Amino acid sequence: MTAFPGGTALPGPVVRVGVIGVGMIGQDHIRRITQVLTGGVVTAVNDVDKARAGQVAAGLPGTSVHETAVGLIADDTVDAVLVASWGLAHEEQVVAAIAAGKPVFCEKPLAPSSAACQRIMDAEMAAGRRLVQVGFMRRYDAGYRAMKAALDDGGIGAPLLMHCAHRNPSVPPYGFTTDMIVSDSAVHEIDIVRWLFGEEIVATSVLRPRRSSQAGDGLQDPLILVFETASGILVDDEVFVNARYGYDVRGEVVGESGTVALADLGETTLSAAGRRGVRVPADWRDRFIRAYDAELQDWLHAVAAGTSAGPTSWDGYAAAAVTDAALEALRTGQRTAVTMPERPDFYAK
Amino acid sequence: MTAFPGGTALPGPVVRVGVIGVGMIGQDHIRRITQVLTGGVVTAVNDVDKARAGQVAAGLPGTSVHETAVGLIADDTVDAVLVASWGLAHEEQVVAAIAAGKPVFCEKPLAPSSAACQRIMDAEMAAGRRLVQVGFMRRYDAGYRAMKAALDDGGIGAPLLMHCAHRNPSVPPYGFTTDMIVSDSAVHEIDIVRWLFGEEIVATSVLRPRRSSQAGDGLQDPLILVFETASGILVDDEVFVNARYGYDVRGEVVGESGTVALADLGETTLSAAGRRGVRVPADWRDRFIRAYDAELQDWLHAVAAGTSAGPTSWDGYAAAAVTDAALEALRTGQRTAVTMPERPDFYAK
Amino acid sequence: MTAFPGGTALPGPVVRVGVIGVGMIGQDHIRRITQVLTGGVVTAVNDVDKARAGQVAAGLPGTSVHETAVGLIADDTVDAVLVASWGLAHEEQVVAAIAAGKPVFCEKPLAPSSAACQRIMDAEMAAGRRLVQVGFMRRYDAGYRAMKAALDDGGIGAPLLMHCAHRNPSVPPYGFTTDMIVSDSAVHEIDIVRWLFGEEIVATSVLRPRRSSQAGDGLQDPLILVFETASGILVDDEVFVNARYGYDVRGEVVGESGTVALADLGETTLSAAGRRGVRVPADWRDRFIRAYDAELQDWLHAVAAGTSAGPTSWDGYAAAAVTDAALEALRTGQRTAVTMPERPDFYAK
Amino acid sequence: MTAFPGGTALPGPVVRVGVIGVGMIGQDHIRRITQVLTGGVVTAVNDVDKARAGQVAAGLPGTSVHETAVGLIADDTVDAVLVASWGLAHEEQVVAAIAAGKPVFCEKPLAPSSAACQRIMDAEMAAGRRLVQVGFMRRYDAGYRAMKAALDDGGIGAPLLMHCAHRNPSVPPYGFTTDMIVSDSAVHEIDIVRWLFGEEIVATSVLRPRRSSQAGDGLQDPLILVFETASGILVDDEVFVNARYGYDVRGEVVGESGTVALADLGETTLSAAGRRGVRVPADWRDRFIRAYDAELQDWLHAVAAGTSAGPTSWDGYAAAAVTDAALEALRTGQRTAVTMPERPDFYAK
Repeated sequence: MTAFPGGTALPGPVVRVGVIGVGMIGQDHIRRITQVLTGGVVTAVNDVDKARAGQVAAGLPGTSVHETAVGLIADDTVDAVLVASWGLAHEEQVVAAIAAGKPVFCEKPLAPSSAACQRIMDAEMAAGRRLVQVGFMRRYDAGYRAMKAALDDGGIGAPLLMHCAHRNPSVPPYGFTTDMIVSDSAVHEIDIVRWLFGEEIVATSVLRPRRSSQAGDGLQDPLILVFETASGILVDDEVFVNARYGYDVRGEVVGESGTVALADLGETTLSAAGRRGVRVPADWRDRFIRAYDAELQDWLHAVAAGTSAGPTSWDGYAAAAVTDAALEALRTGQRTAVTMPERPDFYAK
Repeated sequence: MTAFPGGTALPGPVVRVGVIGVGMIGQDHIRRITQVLTGGVVTAVNDVDKARAGQVAAGLPGTSVHETAVGLIADDTVDAVLVASWGLAHEEQVVAAIAAGKPVFCEKPLAPSSAACQRIMDAEMAAGRRLVQVGFMRRYDAGYRAMKAALDDGGIGAPLLMHCAHRNPSVPPYGFTTDMIVSDSAVHEIDIVRWLFGEEIVATSVLRPRRSSQAGDGLQDPLILVFETASGILVDDEVFVNARYGYDVRGEVVGESGTVALADLGETTLSAAGRRGVRVPADWRDRFIRAYDAELQDWLHAVAAGTSAGPTSWDGYAAAAVTDAALEALRTGQRTAVTMPERPDFYAK
Repeated sequence: MTAFPGGTALPGPVVRVGVIGVGMIGQDHIRRITQVLTGGVVTAVNDVDKARAGQVAAGLPGTSVHETAVGLIADDTVDAVLVASWGLAHEEQVVAAIAAGKPVFCEKPLAPSSAACQRIMDAEMAAGRRLVQVGFMRRYDAGYRAMKAALDDGGIGAPLLMHCAHRNPSVPPYGFTTDMIVSDSAVHEIDIVRWLFGEEIVATSVLRPRRSSQAGDGLQDPLILVFETASGILVDDEVFVNARYGYDVRGEVVGESGTVALADLGETTLSAAGRRGVRVPADWRDRFIRAYDAELQDWLHAVAAGTSAGPTSWDGYAAAAVTDAALEALRTGQRTAVTMPERPDFYAK
Repeated sequence: MTAFPGGTALPGPVVRVGVIGVGMIGQDHIRRITQVLTGGVVTAVNDVDKARAGQVAAGLPGTSVHETAVGLIADDTVDAVLVASWGLAHEEQVVAAIAAGKPVFCEKPLAPSSAACQRIMDAEMAAGRRLVQVGFMRRYDAGYRAMKAALDDGGIGAPLLMHCAHRNPSVPPYGFTTDMIVSDSAVHEIDIVRWLFGEEIVATSVLRPRRSSQAGDGLQDPLILVFETASGILVDDEVFVNARYGYDVRGEVVGESGTVALADLGETTLSAAGRRGVRVPADWRDRFIRAYDAELQDWLHAVAAGTSAGPTSWDGYAAAAVTDAALEALRTGQRTAVTMPERPDFYAK
């Protein structure tokens, strides 16, 4: 953590961030730290694509490029680490940051298997303090936060069920598999459901609606996932990655005396050519840009304060465990129980 | 005021209706024929509660009371029969009307079992012409009609799945069983799904969300039913009969390029006390009053024209067959296939 | 199909209506009486275009054609008269109906000048009973009725001001004058304001926004009219007859503690091509068809009951007086007081 | 402008801000610079209330307190000045900042008279570069920006008129005058209209609706202001500072082929107790917090880049000139032309 030169005013502590992985999402976080948020500066970058790392650093005065993630983590000018690399690399990098005693923000998924997530938790518990924040940014979305507030203030009574829809306009015609609809897309609802209701998902099923002719070869799109929580709340989650008309994330919680739903988002209502309405977001960035800002700002503030915030390694683990069960349900067509130990006290609220 | 003198212009044929069953729904249809619609007059009534039949007739000049349904059906001043009696009595009454060659409007369900519905179809086919209209009034709702128009004009592409919610503010604390959530409530979505997509439901499942503490003893409320159509369209249907906040029927069809949903209904938007919004209907009558008007007007027009319209005996039969499967799915917890023969040509569009 | 045999029950009194003027609006009312409403029959028609009268009557079994309006009014088979002729003919026809002691429904305007309206009132008061209903159908619109109910139940406190917009997609390029924006279009808000607030308009101004290039030669379109009521409620009314995008009637009353506005009307919400929204009505018929049905049903019921209902001659007179002032304000650019006597007790509620 | 110590990474230039006036709005801007935005630090504060200045500085490590505004402006650790003092003090402070060659953000109004604004412009033009940004934050609101984008992309055709409403839940019962409804409240629409349409307001009128009984003694609340732009666009602006139900800012621009309106803002839709709807913001901060963030971030970025952005002194002047005319119209009841010279080339876009 650095500060202003002696004798002049201080802007408060500035967190020096090292960024591992400078693809689209990594660059977006760098833009955020550099141009939008307060209290952070990017001092080092690393990427498996060294040319790309160099190009990104070239636009950031005073930012160094590291050959390896490990080297970046060890850098004295790095106070905290942001992991935006390929999912398979997360475990090693996050564990190394923990070993170095440095706070780490890790994009979701924390790791591609629950076993790997377990090893991260083990390392963090061994270190004795929470150092990891996982990038489930929807918890920072104003809509979901207002929904949680409505739940918590009792305005709709005890929650009984929830309807979700998660629609992307499209995915690339090749390379996006049906498994990824679960592990990349539905994982967002898996986390948000756990967070909204403050309880674990204990079982899951996957239903297969009529397949869109717009879906790539072999892709079963859309899917409907069903989640059951510990208290019996039932969640249906339509995930449709070729919805064409826009990026549309919907949610409605039904309680004993009312419901609360995510509202439409358009800034203006246009009346033209016989219709009146609002725009639908174009993509996830458009929809969740403020949530990304807020999650990373929260991380920077927590790091500066020496505390932790946001989704924990346990949240990353639990999401992985539910994802595992959902993938099994997708394969077998059967309702599948989630296998998961009790939450360690270390991760109690 | 004056009335038709003999020998002058007629307002067109007037259908003389005999009403069997003059409880709440029967009286409402009488009010409709008498005070709202054109082309009909109630000339005879019958009810198992004779005192009630007499009271109702007393308010209708020139309307006779019959001791028996059979007697009413045979009455020469009855051109057409409206059956609003108890469901168990439908079969006998409808078959008698068919035998008399008189058109009959039968409230849903056509009969409480698919076997009984089959016997009605047999009688009607033997009679050689369609005489039965079943009271699935949602097909006449402006919202569902606009939804079907949107589907038919291709604006959202091929339909893939549908989300439904059917919420009643409350049911009586005693006497309303979990089976009735399926047979009395969900049957409306069963019919509307068949009609919207023009295809049969081939399988169904029933999920059990967390139970509302507002539900009466032994009542599993809400339920989520899942319907699968012949082409693979998947429909989830939340049915919640103690939703408290209002009577709320929702629906959204998701197609390959867009979605169409029932819109909110409030006539005005009120801004007061920190909130802006519309009212939610208070009950089914409030929500569907125009649909009831339209279905019965359509029946009167068809009867006067010597044709038939609206949901047929086959529709009544198919709804019963799907209901049977759903009740089985409710009991067993398993996905249950619907057992149903091919549609007879007699009932082709 | 069958019809009433002599001596059996009647469906209640049937009002035999004679229709003067069978152009578009007259034919629409005939369709309404014949195919939609209860308790009425068209027994006679008249039109300045005799061929048209004959064609319309040809489609109505038993309906006679009269050479003159006076002849129709005198016809013994005519219980009540519907005047849908050219505005300049209203006075003579309505006065003749009054003289014959027959109830008369007169399309708006009651007469083209307040002086002519005064003569109608004089005739009606001389006849000693209210016989005239004026066709201000908006009072029967579910939206305005809910707005009035919200006002009357105190939910928004005392009304202080109101915003109105009245948008037509287009008018014919020739023949539609700026004066007609006031006398044909704004007259609807003039009546509705009087009705909503239960008080008279005492002054009016007309403002001239930038002119649409879509407006015909010499047409100042849109206009903004301002009305001031007796208690000081201020109403601004945008009237725009070439709004292109649809037929859109808006209204919001602002009270001391809240506001109530006409809600959007679309039956469904469509999400497609990056937007979500509802349709805007295509034209006045689409928007107000139910209001037209309700006003004429109310008239038939009142005629059958020997009473009167709906907007009175006084309402027709007051609308004409305010229109006169607004036309003066349009000419002079000045705020113009409305000249109007006290309401005769004869027209008290 | 300061930077990180030699040898370590730089976060980019940090603008050292001196804040004059640390009442509610000043403190809010300090919070914004310190905890929300990037690229700024508060190094000095000043207030007429010295105790308050000291308390605020106590919470900001390294921030100095100045006895006088002039002293603060002269401080070498102040790169740029934020003026959030009383309106009457603005002119002297802004002119002093200009004289010192330091960029200055001045809360609205720029100065309480157009003559004072003219003197600020004269000083700035003499200095040879634009140094002043005026705090008309609505230009940074996502709703108004989307509205302007819709105007600019031609989606509604040429603008003809606009409806505005500006409702506060309440104002203090004493001290808030009718003039302030114009100068403090309506001034926001005055600026936004000029910005949206890119042209000047040339005349204004003020109408007096029925007065709310909730308004303090002598307060004429609500008002309706009418603005006419150079091309003839007519804007009606309801300003109601005791609207009770919430803080509600509405706007709809009507163009030749459609309209664009500010949309509702609620994050969630709640269905409960017979109603469905969204919340209305509680106050201006709730409604415009992001706009305040964005305007100040834009200022910091512009200062760091050595450029200028946002509303200029000319915008401050023009708003004052229109306000003067509106106050005259309020006094006289007459339409009043705005007296204003041509815009100096110095302030061309």
